[in-house]
Amino acid sequence: MWLIAATGFNALSLFLLGLSAAKLLSEAGLSVVVLEARDRVGGRTFTIRNDKVNYVDVGGSYVGPTQNRILRLAKELGVENYKVYVEGHMFHYKGGKSQNIADICPSTWNPFVYLDYNNFWRTMDKMGKEIPVDAPWDAPHAEEWDKMTMKELINKICWTKAVRDFATVFVNVNVTSEPHQVSALWFLWYVRQCGGTFRIFSITNGGQERKFKGGSGQISEKIMERLKGRVKLERPVVSIDQTGDDVLVETLNHEIYEGKYVISAIPPILTTKIHYKPELPPNRNQLIQRLPMGSVIKTMMYYREAFWRRKGYCGSFIIEDEESPVGITIDDTKPDGTFPAIMGFILTRKAIKLAHLSKEERKKKISEAYAKALGMKEALQPVHYEEKDWAMEQYSGGCYTAYFPPGIMHSYGRIIRQPVDRIYFAGTETATQWSGYMEGAVQAGERAAREVLHSMGKISKSEIWMPEPESKDVPARPFPSTFWERNLPSAPGLLCLLSCTLCLTSVAAAGLLVCKKGLVSPN
Amino acid sequence: MWLIAATGFNALSLFLLGLSAAKLLSEAGLSVVVLEARDRVGGRTFTIRNDKVNYVDVGGSYVGPTQNRILRLAKELGVENYKVYVEGHMFHYKGGKSQNIADICPSTWNPFVYLDYNNFWRTMDKMGKEIPVDAPWDAPHAEEWDKMTMKELINKICWTKAVRDFATVFVNVNVTSEPHQVSALWFLWYVRQCGGTFRIFSITNGGQERKFKGGSGQISEKIMERLKGRVKLERPVVSIDQTGDDVLVETLNHEIYEGKYVISAIPPILTTKIHYKPELPPNRNQLIQRLPMGSVIKTMMYYREAFWRRKGYCGSFIIEDEESPVGITIDDTKPDGTFPAIMGFILTRKAIKLAHLSKEERKKKISEAYAKALGMKEALQPVHYEEKDWAMEQYSGGCYTAYFPPGIMHSYGRIIRQPVDRIYFAGTETATQWSGYMEGAVQAGERAAREVLHSMGKISKSEIWMPEPESKDVPARPFPSTFWERNLPSAPGLLCLLSCTLCLTSVAAAGLLVCKKGLVSPN
Repeated sequence: MWLIAATGFNALSLFLLGLSAAKLLSEAGLSVVVLEARDRVGGRTFTIRNDKVNYVDVGGSYVGPTQNRILRLAKELGVENYKVYVEGHMFHYKGGKSQNIADICPSTWNPFVYLDYNNFWRTMDKMGKEIPVDAPWDAPHAEEWDKMTMKELINKICWTKAVRDFATVFVNVNVTSEPHQVSALWFLWYVRQCGGTFRIFSITNGGQERKFKGGSGQISEKIMERLKGRVKLERPVVSIDQTGDDVLVETLNHEIYEGKYVISAIPPILTTKIHYKPELPPNRNQLIQRLPMGSVIKTMMYYREAFWRRKGYCGSFIIEDEESPVGITIDDTKPDGTFPAIMGFILTRKAIKLAHLSKEERKKKISEAYAKALGMKEALQPVHYEEKDWAMEQYSGGCYTAYFPPGIMHSYGRIIRQPVDRIYFAGTETATQWSGYMEGAVQAGERAAREVLHSMGKISKSEIWMPEPESKDVPARPFPSTFWERNLPSAPGLLCLLSCTLCLTSVAAAGLLVCKKGLVSPN
Repeated sequence: MWLIAATGFNALSLFLLGLSAAKLLSEAGLSVVVLEARDRVGGRTFTIRNDKVNYVDVGGSYVGPTQNRILRLAKELGVENYKVYVEGHMFHYKGGKSQNIADICPSTWNPFVYLDYNNFWRTMDKMGKEIPVDAPWDAPHAEEWDKMTMKELINKICWTKAVRDFATVFVNVNVTSEPHQVSALWFLWYVRQCGGTFRIFSITNGGQERKFKGGSGQISEKIMERLKGRVKLERPVVSIDQTGDDVLVETLNHEIYEGKYVISAIPPILTTKIHYKPELPPNRNQLIQRLPMGSVIKTMMYYREAFWRRKGYCGSFIIEDEESPVGITIDDTKPDGTFPAIMGFILTRKAIKLAHLSKEERKKKISEAYAKALGMKEALQPVHYEEKDWAMEQYSGGCYTAYFPPGIMHSYGRIIRQPVDRIYFAGTETATQWSGYMEGAVQAGERAAREVLHSMGKISKSEIWMPEPESKDVPARPFPSTFWERNLPSAPGLLCLLSCTLCLTSVAAAGLLVCKKGLVSPN
């Protein structure tokens, strides 16, 4: 028997690799088993169904251009997608005021703040371009940037408090952790491997452009159907024994599975839950202790109507206010206009702080924050509320993904995909494109499956890493920068320019004065 | 049946709590079971015995004044201690040169470097004094300092490269991790709860003053004897079920232990190895992902004679050289002069870098580094070598202790000792004095045992935290600072003073000149 042990949890990538590998494997007379720790498939994707919501994704949900693997897979499984509602204005709430925003950046009347924003995005992308997506530890400044937290980098790049604060939001939203917790090298890599600041943060043409009709959970569910009984639920893996000819995998309920290979498709930190025989190599044993999961509570507030649209709002807003539980929202009304809702993320420090409250208390705090930000009392009257605190699940540990604290990527990063004898590593954390997203899970799962096929001599080494053709239905457009975006000075650059100009002007004026007064003849 | 489940690993603290609790428990007709994951007791202490070394501690070994609990316990068990050999000079090797050192600080001819060292120690201790040992998260600057890495703090405090480099060594040696990896708040707390920079780093009158005759491993071994069969080896815990009246603890070999309480005496990260029913609270589930173990390979190089003593060296030296595997050494010759040896730590980045080498290769590199630092070819001729890479043990994860990356102590720290229903937490990481050391393990184990006794109504709340009388055999002397150490300026302070003086002198001189020249009359 040929085995793939999922060891549960982030089952998505497992299923995906299971699916794509299944054809080849059955042709070779081989069989696959998927061991899932929970009582459901989907891992960090999870679609809840009930009368109040019809269906709702309380986990991974968004897809967009350049996420071609998950789009291909969904299409193959007959899961359609739709565009998130963006008619009207996005807005940014700060200091008691709401201001419309055009793209990923709050608008401002202050030229210094404008230049500072521009310089922040530009610098992040420029630094990111130095970092190889498949080997960030080999970047020219890898060691230096990995010894720095994002907080330090933000303080170096940003000149105004407004932009430093917004940069913090940018980190919070993208990786559900704090700038002072994460390595600058890792975060720069993370943004880079998603296609840059605009791609990762945008709705239209970005990572949040679309959702799946019926919910993203269907993808795993449909693959489970195709695998016909080969997926075993409630089978957390407790040990992997590689001392014999076959690999022995034991589950919490004392079942033993025997096979030739194992693919672990769980986040690195959850692989600590397994007892290994022989023990893992020292650096891997340490790496897996060093990649904690982010913190986020995903919330959905349902209303009788999408009242925010009346005011011209699309439902996406960024709230910069320590009192507001939610930091960022997106309209979550169904594509046919039913079940009007706002999705909001309670991010990192706020998720920790509010974890002890009851669901009702969080619901109340959130609706109050929405009422304040929207300036609409209707927000106080939700008809239903759903939420999911991912830190509560021992087989997730948190969401969306693992983060790298300072000093880990450069020292340990290069072993993240290195097999340990017959264990291969998938899971979105091991991806090199859209790692942290469903797309990354598919890339990683398929790559790990092909590593196994290569190790069996069924495919060549060059076939392990396969490029993915672009989705025809969801094409990506570039984010062209304007001449000004590329060439405007930074805020301190402008100051420098101004003071030089002032200085020169003064000298010229003084010269003119001296001439005019006849103190010195111009000759 | 009344149960304490060690869940293995860091068994030391478990045994200690087992011992001190045992009397009370048997009087109450209660029984204790200790579940140890490995095939030996001792946890991160481990005494190896063979012909070549007689006995040697490849794990925790040193004790000193103010470590009163471990000293009391050892005495009770009949384990004697002896003073580490310190006759002769300690030295500091850097840039190809060896210089004697008097206390914890390299000597220097450069007054700026001298002032910078002085200011570093002084500032570290001053900041440390602001931090409550039992609640570092409540320190006045907790949030600010926790958002900073030690690298940032070192760069703020230290003015010269020499002192910044040595401060890095200070972090590496004390917590087997890098300044850029750890929170400044946590490291300041760590040094503080050991009694300050001098107490933690000194041999004489400090944490490394003594060792146990026959090895520190005896302490756990002797407690195991006393517990007569209540210690079960090779019983890694895989699950804890608290859903019923009794707590059910299952081990990897399918045994189920039933009891009223559980004390977990393993490092926080290793508690991720257990499957919990019900799941842990969200913030605890996240805390335990965020406390990785440090990295260190402890090495012992044996020689025919203690040849370094011929040159007047005591055997303790600090090597600041990226090429040298070992960063710090201490003479490890037995107290009767037999088995001449040098103990050396391969610390953090070097432990990671050299993990893939063979034992022989590391031995060669180390003896070469010793020959270079000592300037004695005899170092190239060891007669035996022992080493232990603690990162290889899945039931240790690393040594000496867990570290806090930036942002963790302030956000999650306060729950580290908070019981989860009937699970109580011991382990040196949960101590408030000498956490990270054997002393901390004893403090934590005894405190957790008394928490359980309190919960059973057998002792009052005020009896949980017990002060420990000072050891009569190993009294602590203070480290008095001199007037100059307290009042000398920092290096930039001196520069400021000098420039002010220069400025004032110039003004005075100019004034004098003006007077003398009669340009201005002094009246």
